[in-house]
Amino acid sequence: MARIRSSAFREKVTTAADAVRYIHAGDTVAISGFASAGTPKAIVPALADRIHQARGAGENFTINLLTGASVSAETERMLADIDGIALRMPYQSEATARRKINDGRMDYVDIHLSHVAQQVWEGYYGTVDVAVVEVAGITESGELIPSASVGNNKTWLDVAEKVILEVNSWVPDAMNGIHDIYYGTALPPHRKPLEINHVEDRIGQTTFRVDPDKVVAVVETNCPDSASPLTEPDAVSLAIAGHVLDFFAREVQAGRMPADSLLPLQAGIGNVANAVLGGLDRGGYRDLTCYSEVIQDSMLRLIKDGAVAHASATSLALSEKGLEEFTANVDFYRNHITLRPQEISNHPEVVRRLGIIAMNGMLEADIYGNVNSTHVMGTKIMNGIGGSGDFTRNGYVSMFLSPSTARGGAISSIVPMVPHVDHTEHDTQVIVTEQGLADLRGLSPRQRAKVVIDNCAHPDFREMLHDYLARAEAQPGAGQTPHLLGEAFSFHQRYLATGSMQH
Amino acid sequence: MARIRSSAFREKVTTAADAVRYIHAGDTVAISGFASAGTPKAIVPALADRIHQARGAGENFTINLLTGASVSAETERMLADIDGIALRMPYQSEATARRKINDGRMDYVDIHLSHVAQQVWEGYYGTVDVAVVEVAGITESGELIPSASVGNNKTWLDVAEKVILEVNSWVPDAMNGIHDIYYGTALPPHRKPLEINHVEDRIGQTTFRVDPDKVVAVVETNCPDSASPLTEPDAVSLAIAGHVLDFFAREVQAGRMPADSLLPLQAGIGNVANAVLGGLDRGGYRDLTCYSEVIQDSMLRLIKDGAVAHASATSLALSEKGLEEFTANVDFYRNHITLRPQEISNHPEVVRRLGIIAMNGMLEADIYGNVNSTHVMGTKIMNGIGGSGDFTRNGYVSMFLSPSTARGGAISSIVPMVPHVDHTEHDTQVIVTEQGLADLRGLSPRQRAKVVIDNCAHPDFREMLHDYLARAEAQPGAGQTPHLLGEAFSFHQRYLATGSMQH
Repeated sequence: MARIRSSAFREKVTTAADAVRYIHAGDTVAISGFASAGTPKAIVPALADRIHQARGAGENFTINLLTGASVSAETERMLADIDGIALRMPYQSEATARRKINDGRMDYVDIHLSHVAQQVWEGYYGTVDVAVVEVAGITESGELIPSASVGNNKTWLDVAEKVILEVNSWVPDAMNGIHDIYYGTALPPHRKPLEINHVEDRIGQTTFRVDPDKVVAVVETNCPDSASPLTEPDAVSLAIAGHVLDFFAREVQAGRMPADSLLPLQAGIGNVANAVLGGLDRGGYRDLTCYSEVIQDSMLRLIKDGAVAHASATSLALSEKGLEEFTANVDFYRNHITLRPQEISNHPEVVRRLGIIAMNGMLEADIYGNVNSTHVMGTKIMNGIGGSGDFTRNGYVSMFLSPSTARGGAISSIVPMVPHVDHTEHDTQVIVTEQGLADLRGLSPRQRAKVVIDNCAHPDFREMLHDYLARAEAQPGAGQTPHLLGEAFSFHQRYLATGSMQH
Repeated sequence: MARIRSSAFREKVTTAADAVRYIHAGDTVAISGFASAGTPKAIVPALADRIHQARGAGENFTINLLTGASVSAETERMLADIDGIALRMPYQSEATARRKINDGRMDYVDIHLSHVAQQVWEGYYGTVDVAVVEVAGITESGELIPSASVGNNKTWLDVAEKVILEVNSWVPDAMNGIHDIYYGTALPPHRKPLEINHVEDRIGQTTFRVDPDKVVAVVETNCPDSASPLTEPDAVSLAIAGHVLDFFAREVQAGRMPADSLLPLQAGIGNVANAVLGGLDRGGYRDLTCYSEVIQDSMLRLIKDGAVAHASATSLALSEKGLEEFTANVDFYRNHITLRPQEISNHPEVVRRLGIIAMNGMLEADIYGNVNSTHVMGTKIMNGIGGSGDFTRNGYVSMFLSPSTARGGAISSIVPMVPHVDHTEHDTQVIVTEQGLADLRGLSPRQRAKVVIDNCAHPDFREMLHDYLARAEAQPGAGQTPHLLGEAFSFHQRYLATGSMQH
């Protein structure tokens, strides 16, 4: 019980099986966790058992599940497998949950991650019955030391009727102090400016507050975060990274970014983003900063090498190797990393002020620059929009990165029209594939189309795309954004019929 | 010359025909004007003459035209008619320009109005050769008193290589002091918080600065702003307004908005918005505020009646009657109105902080809540996105309003899938037609579809929409957002083939 320094909380220590009795059928349960970090380790398995038993006894037992973003895959899977989730919000990235959603067996509300806290405060999701939050420890005065992600935990602790805490002694003690928990947010008309003018600015405190009367149970764990799988960058990722680095060099040349430090970088999760960040140390930069959602392995190396001076995020989503590196050198990293609530890491006010360079992945873009980040073939959810919209809309430069093909060349990432739009033509400034980079800034739709096809589409699909565009433009009164409505989804329909977008 | 109190500027007074010689073929020309207010009155006709003559002499003569938003219709038409514009940015709403754009004879870059200033500063549109800015007067020290719109004028005066001023003595002298011109903006990494915490907060000065060496000509005019046409609200607009007012009452009931003052209102331009605002004095509100782009006639009445305490905007877009009313009582209105640069009136930071209720028109929405604001049948530009995205994305509640049908019932404003997306499902919270209101907050796509069809679609189209949805949902693995790609645009294709979306 070394991590629980408040006697009032020590009295509440119990087992997960006991604690989970506070969760009832129909409850809205808000849990900690953002990407692979900070998911509760003990309560969810116990909850899955409880649901399983209730089902055995003929009861219906589902919950509404709110999180920071995705949570550890095994947690997501455990509850989805037994159809334990009626409504899921705001993000998931796990195969079983995805299948349940696409089968219409789980309602999924896919919203901008910066909007979650305010929407929950406004009551869009009703009462939050129980919060389950992993922490690294409890201070003598009853404040909570956060673990490896912050996410929406501040909000969950504030709004929930009951709170279950998991105190995970695996989280390094020395991490204490890395967090910046801001208690100055409010609902309008009471909002004030957020005084973050630089990535490293601190505006809050290092701990969460909680009303001890709401804490119904404390469970001790000693369990590592699940690891974010990462593969070594492949040739395609490296080519994309190369185009991005060339673009930065040209922006510096044009006087739009400082030569040493660029502007604060945001990169989505995944191998391509990891490769771009990994490539930065070849750029000769010395004072880079990052203002993002997650810190991936590549960031640790950049910090260690001195290329990145400071990184702000809401989660440490590391691979097994990254977790080892971080844990072994936590005293060093604590001075170069700040973890904030996702409300702040993704806040439009801060994103706009700092002038973020937003780099996010996509499923596909159309020739005019509309981007589909979420829906395979327009209907099936992949993951969700996550924070990509928070950064894209209000960032200084908004880039989308993707290999030009998927499924061994059967799918083109550049299509005539995307069948689902997450980022509109008004928001997409730069598209990058391994083929090249399309800089769409200041261009009209017809100008953009040519650049996107020539610079980004895979050669196998370029002719088909040009043909579509030429025939659309040749129509009388073709319009600002020429399209053939009867053929706009022909690539997708062909794929659904034949397994390939190719003729 | 009473309005020109600086002798240095008096020496530069000349005729429009003379002044326009500073504008050359291929120039990028940035002019004042936002909606019907503040467009230069003398230079543009003289420029049209100059272009016409040059054409007669066999020269090619086009310019790139940058504005605040739309400008007066006669101005837009004059230059479009003679194919005088190569590139147009960021918004237009005039028939001739629209035709040229849709015919592919004018490049049109349709971007968020809050992004214009920063993009021009960044150099996306190259050098701004000449700024033509209407002002109400010039002070002894050479500062410029703005006229009836602010728009991007501060930016144009700062970035242009040459400046031509029009001093319009029609603008009431007593308007001086209504403007709040903020000189604290910067490009990153030098940005600071905008200290606007209430609609009426002032953070700037009442005049523009200009480098007198850049001013190549000053032209005197005495010419009223063109009037924004407005019709009396019809039954459809009143029904939409009624649903909106009921929604506000429910939000107050739910504790989400203060009872007397709600939250700051933003309303797009047009008859529906005007009707909604007009309806507010029936709501018994006493301390409403507005933080918007334009002030329309209905706002003047609300201010006079005491329902609205303060309105902030970037333009006074009034009808002939509204102009008379404002001019006759300018001393009164000056204390209740603040006119700001559009960078500030539409700024994401301020929109988010104040908690704006965003109400914008649309062409059509789909059953899942994606909104098309700009492209008729997916290809032909109508006007542009304007500020609707600035307010929608970062607002507290984001609403889209439209009659449920157009063209005498031939077009449904609710369709299976919109063929162009300006506002995504992630951003649209409430859709209102005269049929009713769909509150989409907290709902998954499948849940939303039912509410949109039942509450908002016209009865003539409801069955067709339900049929589409049912068949899409019945497919195996129908997905998070069920669609039939081969039929998604069937409504639009039918309209193009037969002149009606109806069977």
